[in-house]
Amino acid sequence: MIAYSRPKKTTCTGLERLADCDRASRSRTGSCPGQESISRSGRTMTDQRFPLRLDLKQGAVDMSHGSGGRAMAQLIAEVFQPSLENPLLAQGNDQALFSPPPGRLVMSTDGHVISPLFFPGGDIGCLSVHGTINDVAMAGARPLYLSAGFVLEEGFPLRDLLRIVRSMGEAAQAAGVPIVTGDTKVVERGKGDGVFITTTGIGVVPDGIRISGELARPGDAILVSGSIGDHGVAILSKRENLGFATEIRSDTAALHDLVAAMVAAVPEIHCLRDPTRGGLATTLNELAFQSGVGMQIREERIPVAAEVSAACELLGLDPLYVANEGKLIAICPGERAESLLSAMRAHPLGAESAIIGEVVEDPMHFVQMETRFGGSRIVDWLAGEQLPRIC
Amino acid sequence: MIAYSRPKKTTCTGLERLADCDRASRSRTGSCPGQESISRSGRTMTDQRFPLRLDLKQGAVDMSHGSGGRAMAQLIAEVFQPSLENPLLAQGNDQALFSPPPGRLVMSTDGHVISPLFFPGGDIGCLSVHGTINDVAMAGARPLYLSAGFVLEEGFPLRDLLRIVRSMGEAAQAAGVPIVTGDTKVVERGKGDGVFITTTGIGVVPDGIRISGELARPGDAILVSGSIGDHGVAILSKRENLGFATEIRSDTAALHDLVAAMVAAVPEIHCLRDPTRGGLATTLNELAFQSGVGMQIREERIPVAAEVSAACELLGLDPLYVANEGKLIAICPGERAESLLSAMRAHPLGAESAIIGEVVEDPMHFVQMETRFGGSRIVDWLAGEQLPRIC
Repeated sequence: MIAYSRPKKTTCTGLERLADCDRASRSRTGSCPGQESISRSGRTMTDQRFPLRLDLKQGAVDMSHGSGGRAMAQLIAEVFQPSLENPLLAQGNDQALFSPPPGRLVMSTDGHVISPLFFPGGDIGCLSVHGTINDVAMAGARPLYLSAGFVLEEGFPLRDLLRIVRSMGEAAQAAGVPIVTGDTKVVERGKGDGVFITTTGIGVVPDGIRISGELARPGDAILVSGSIGDHGVAILSKRENLGFATEIRSDTAALHDLVAAMVAAVPEIHCLRDPTRGGLATTLNELAFQSGVGMQIREERIPVAAEVSAACELLGLDPLYVANEGKLIAICPGERAESLLSAMRAHPLGAESAIIGEVVEDPMHFVQMETRFGGSRIVDWLAGEQLPRIC
Repeated sequence: MIAYSRPKKTTCTGLERLADCDRASRSRTGSCPGQESISRSGRTMTDQRFPLRLDLKQGAVDMSHGSGGRAMAQLIAEVFQPSLENPLLAQGNDQALFSPPPGRLVMSTDGHVISPLFFPGGDIGCLSVHGTINDVAMAGARPLYLSAGFVLEEGFPLRDLLRIVRSMGEAAQAAGVPIVTGDTKVVERGKGDGVFITTTGIGVVPDGIRISGELARPGDAILVSGSIGDHGVAILSKRENLGFATEIRSDTAALHDLVAAMVAAVPEIHCLRDPTRGGLATTLNELAFQSGVGMQIREERIPVAAEVSAACELLGLDPLYVANEGKLIAICPGERAESLLSAMRAHPLGAESAIIGEVVEDPMHFVQMETRFGGSRIVDWLAGEQLPRIC
């Protein structure tokens, strides 16, 4: 429950120099002679509480890093705080304080247990930032702030942790959505799996926007923002050490800018959702069920990259059920579909957007697909487990 | 990333009855003949998506419950949703939408990895609700909403999960702070430890209140809201199967009502913090460091229950470093200390409150304690790990 506190004072590394250091600290003029100086980034900051700095090359997480005591304070000061630094985090309390803009807020949370932790196109760090930003954005909201809760396994290399936390910090900075508060727990070796990260986000919904899963109506168009299946295939190929001629990379990305452009162009959007676990097929079923409608999609309209399609064939996967981390589904009134498509294609993350079908009346709430061969089949919910620990 | 969606329609258990059921659903008059009827609580709700109900007595979590597909939807519909139900959760999206009252907000997050999951006085479910409510309240805020992210281990008994989620729901309801959105992940057997829960909370800070860890000033009084060490000793005694003559119970409790009474009585409170991991000693050191002050406390003033004191002696623990889950430290101007003490003692959760010391000038930021025997010793940060996985 200790938060990521940012020490405010310039102090020494050696406990034996505390007295000297204190004078420097009181005079607020700088660091002790011969000691590293504090920097705004905190990266070279030293702290009287910690006689030795963490060994970020050879060191590992141990149980004391979750104790709430000095070791945890050091992990926060030397790993988390420099990588994630922002003024709200720097408040150093167990909570972050801010004044949100007026209006409706959304809140969303997402745990990340992906294996492997590092994969082509990303890692658990940036994924945990993108995933929650996207869940917030799918209400049409502008994400404001994130929190992050870590569960670390004893023995996890500190260099990997640092790499992950830096990736989070970079993703958060690139997205303009700071991580303002956090928490760290440590479990014994064999009681976790390296690192799990649960992020929570809040965002503000522009006036006049109402986007929700139950608002799809017959006659609405169904759009997808790009090719599907990249993330899941990237993870599986890494996990199984499959070498494809072309490396397939995760599409992990923060979609809030794309959403902002979409909402500005077509405020009448009814539904947005990111097809992560369960893929496009399951997400469409969720929306059909929630709205009490059916859906008709056309296979030939659904963008799938050639290499993903080939990999899926090889691996026995159906790309419709493979997870994505940088794509969204949009449902809007049919007459606004072309405008929405244009807005999506004008954004780098929506360049391959397509209208893939329409919402229909169907008391069974089925998602049906016209296949390439002209037939029709029901696209059901994902049953069982196609790819465990995909996000 | 699927949220806890609450199906809105009355449907059948048997897929073979879908057609019949659909008629009932369309007429919105009730359930299928011979089928369980929908209830407002959702506890007896059936759903056309799930031909068989979960076996909540003998069943266990399997990987498919984290897949994002039908099995996960069923876990949500039959375990999470009925236990946590509230109108915001019922929105059924990947995020909850609400209009907070105007003003400054706080956000806090807390992971829970406690072992054992069930202990005298509580369980990981209510603990995960109380812990985050308390972190929000320690800014003087009124907690508004919580989110919950679960990491489940394959093989975890569904009956234990249900018990935990119900405990969360009850704690949230008792506190008046609903869990409005959530997420569930599943990891393979041996890659987790039953269940980890990360909760995040937001709250609103009353106008005119400014409570933060860096605001302690020399001359301020230090108060604690009751006897310390109960939680840690309760966990350890359960973990080690120690049988004390009097069962020691965790003090896990939501402190936001107590805080509201305190803030109403003494708006000038400078600091509030709950002494969880690391105990009273470490929390005081955090505050001293953050505020750049020293502290003088008196051992005889610190409330410790006789049985906790005896258990600590037996176990070689120092109660100053043992975790609490229902206590807080308050720092306020010295001249307001008696008023604050009266307000705290008037609340059931603060009946044993005490003034335990004062803030002093100390460039070393030491916490010093006058012992029972008249001596003085430095009370340092917790070094190393006294009790792993205490929360």
